[in-house]
Amino acid sequence: MLTYELKKSPGVPLYEALYRCIRGDILSGKLAPGTKLPSKRALAQNLEVSKITVEGAYDQLLAEGYIRSREKVGYFVEEIDRLPPASVPPIREQLPAQVPVDLTGTGTEKFPFSVWSRLQREVMLDYGEKLLLPLHNQGTLELRRAIAKHLSDFRGMTVDPRNILVGAGTDFLYNLLIQLLGRDKIYAVEDPGYDKIRRIYAAGGVECVSAAMDGYGVIPEKLGAARVLHISPAHHFPTGLVTPVGRRQELLRWARQRDGYIIEDDYDSEFRFDAHPKPTMQSLDHSGRVVYMNTFSKTLAPSIRISYMVLPTEMMEAFREKLGFYSCTVSSFEQYTLARFLDSGHFEKHINRMRKFYRTRRNRVLEILDRSPYADRMTIREEDAGLHFLVTVDTELTDEALVARCAEAGIRVRALSQYYHTAVPESGRHTLVVNYASVREEQLEAALAQI
Amino acid sequence: MLTYELKKSPGVPLYEALYRCIRGDILSGKLAPGTKLPSKRALAQNLEVSKITVEGAYDQLLAEGYIRSREKVGYFVEEIDRLPPASVPPIREQLPAQVPVDLTGTGTEKFPFSVWSRLQREVMLDYGEKLLLPLHNQGTLELRRAIAKHLSDFRGMTVDPRNILVGAGTDFLYNLLIQLLGRDKIYAVEDPGYDKIRRIYAAGGVECVSAAMDGYGVIPEKLGAARVLHISPAHHFPTGLVTPVGRRQELLRWARQRDGYIIEDDYDSEFRFDAHPKPTMQSLDHSGRVVYMNTFSKTLAPSIRISYMVLPTEMMEAFREKLGFYSCTVSSFEQYTLARFLDSGHFEKHINRMRKFYRTRRNRVLEILDRSPYADRMTIREEDAGLHFLVTVDTELTDEALVARCAEAGIRVRALSQYYHTAVPESGRHTLVVNYASVREEQLEAALAQI
Repeated sequence: MLTYELKKSPGVPLYEALYRCIRGDILSGKLAPGTKLPSKRALAQNLEVSKITVEGAYDQLLAEGYIRSREKVGYFVEEIDRLPPASVPPIREQLPAQVPVDLTGTGTEKFPFSVWSRLQREVMLDYGEKLLLPLHNQGTLELRRAIAKHLSDFRGMTVDPRNILVGAGTDFLYNLLIQLLGRDKIYAVEDPGYDKIRRIYAAGGVECVSAAMDGYGVIPEKLGAARVLHISPAHHFPTGLVTPVGRRQELLRWARQRDGYIIEDDYDSEFRFDAHPKPTMQSLDHSGRVVYMNTFSKTLAPSIRISYMVLPTEMMEAFREKLGFYSCTVSSFEQYTLARFLDSGHFEKHINRMRKFYRTRRNRVLEILDRSPYADRMTIREEDAGLHFLVTVDTELTDEALVARCAEAGIRVRALSQYYHTAVPESGRHTLVVNYASVREEQLEAALAQI
Repeated sequence: MLTYELKKSPGVPLYEALYRCIRGDILSGKLAPGTKLPSKRALAQNLEVSKITVEGAYDQLLAEGYIRSREKVGYFVEEIDRLPPASVPPIREQLPAQVPVDLTGTGTEKFPFSVWSRLQREVMLDYGEKLLLPLHNQGTLELRRAIAKHLSDFRGMTVDPRNILVGAGTDFLYNLLIQLLGRDKIYAVEDPGYDKIRRIYAAGGVECVSAAMDGYGVIPEKLGAARVLHISPAHHFPTGLVTPVGRRQELLRWARQRDGYIIEDDYDSEFRFDAHPKPTMQSLDHSGRVVYMNTFSKTLAPSIRISYMVLPTEMMEAFREKLGFYSCTVSSFEQYTLARFLDSGHFEKHINRMRKFYRTRRNRVLEILDRSPYADRMTIREEDAGLHFLVTVDTELTDEALVARCAEAGIRVRALSQYYHTAVPESGRHTLVVNYASVREEQLEAALAQI
């Protein structure tokens, strides 16, 4: 006779618990196909439950095809297609390893918790039900207006909020761009560069090639058959190069002549320390060839997933026609909160505070390097922008050995050569990329002494 | 002489304002290539600004290649590649049209604002800096654990949090699945079905075919060359069909034999009104063939963009290996808030309240239909689950005319036949799909009287 210990648990009626036990036995094979089940009355007595409970369980098993009923004979286990449960190998949760000095991370200092929290509350109170309505798939008009104003104030850009598309991170936006521009085109990315961008294009199903660079940026003549170019002219990662206006114009000409497109990744333009920011390529473009892209994950925190792009009008119309079925990926609560954060001037204050904070930290890190025993063997480059600089080391060590030596002393750092996809030129060797955003100065000093 | 009205504006130094004016004139062609600019001193006098201001502007123009300097002669406008600004056609903001009775929408009643707001505050206070750290790309462990527990309690599923992947909406997750399963496979979707799913697959670059259905669900023998099957066995949209366990087993057998995959879209399983929910296909699968998918956009609000999928272990490992570079798309703030909402039992309470609320509304809508002059010409079907049912109308009108007649009376509703991708069978005609989630009962009654 079937015997189960039926535990009462909240939300699960007794018949359901019994049903699950029997189903489990059928699926595991303990109850073989063709087996006759006990009568309802007998099973009810055996389990000390009411007959109605057994009836409920049998009915459900019948309804789902686990058993069948033969009139006046009883209930029989059905021929169910089953397999033994696969032994599930345990998966490791990949947690970032802790190192004393991380020169590869991003910083999150100075996030204005109390302001953000207050704005969240205000948004809940002020918007109420409106927060729950389906979102415009480009993002709320409030946030797009706030972004347009920010771009005007900070980057001198003239942007219509209707040309802005908000999304949960640039990864997602790149995927949309592939679908919008098409998989029949070849995409070029900077080399050296941020490997993730290349991987996203590859995963998106497009051919991705290296764009050769010289001291001014990507070389238009060497773009070959590429039709889409992904660049960060304001501050190339990892070299720190700023593309001058002349080259920007040449690249725009390339785009027009090739019927091509330029994706302008302006990812850390807020953290420039020099006085004269260059105009964006989006501002220089008058023929609908430039997609401007930026993110709040760099300026607020990597865990805040709000990015956006500014599409030329024709491309935005194509998006609406071809991809208008997509839903917006950023929740209304955060969109409205960020819009207020921008409109109230808190973002500007935050950026100014961060810029000051990072400038101080950069100077402290530079001082520490300058005081270190290896100072005369190091040359610092491109320290004026973004949150990283380059250190070229006069050494016989290979780059792998150099990085390993730092790791031994507890310093996580990457070599410039690790960012090359094709052959590394001589100028790309013996150079470390120092992201100082998340570094603790005391620890850096201690670690340097250990090398 | 160049004359500009230089307005002081906060954050923009005067030299910058002047630089922008001159740059604008160069780009627009007002200042032709080769034009000699006034001397710094002369321009400073003319504009009544300091010479340092003009110097700052000229330096920036020089640095960016807009002008060049000929020693002891002066400054000249460079040959800049430019085009007249394209006339930007105004874009319409597409706002959803207002209709008195919308039978196509989703509902947002009863959202627990005060609880959500309190949890948001708690999360800010309790997590602090931790909120700012880079996210695990599958989502925070807290949220994945809470989801696994919810799936166990509500769906009887045994799910390891390590197999859960959280994303900003199912649209994004479908795109990940395409990249994970590959574009070389043929994907089959239910016909009739939710057209958006087909469009997303098409935009993702895969061949998408119709899966033929009978009264039990998708027919495995008719899946042809398809290798991936996207279905909603718990409640097919729009017919309301529930796939019985026998057919589920057949489909699982199909997947194993075909080396195929089943994407189980469990999108509105929380809103079933009958007592006996069927087990999910994920629970029946022991060979890693089923991806389970669900969303909180249906149960909380369409503007809350949190969905998730449960991947078989092998697929999760493939995700980590091939697509591990992707960042999580849901901000930490909302992930932690939702985790607490689930863990504290508020989600369960919310669902119960919603289920009761919708059951009452459904009954009221059914009553109204029953009282209407056309009651004897209507047959109601599949009213036990989800937030919609079917009404078959005994009429000579074509479906287009029927929908248009409703629209005239202020009722937005779609016909079942509009959800077919291939030929509509006779059983699919003269039938309306009634989403009652967002309907106002009084307005429905008034509108029905007008038909």
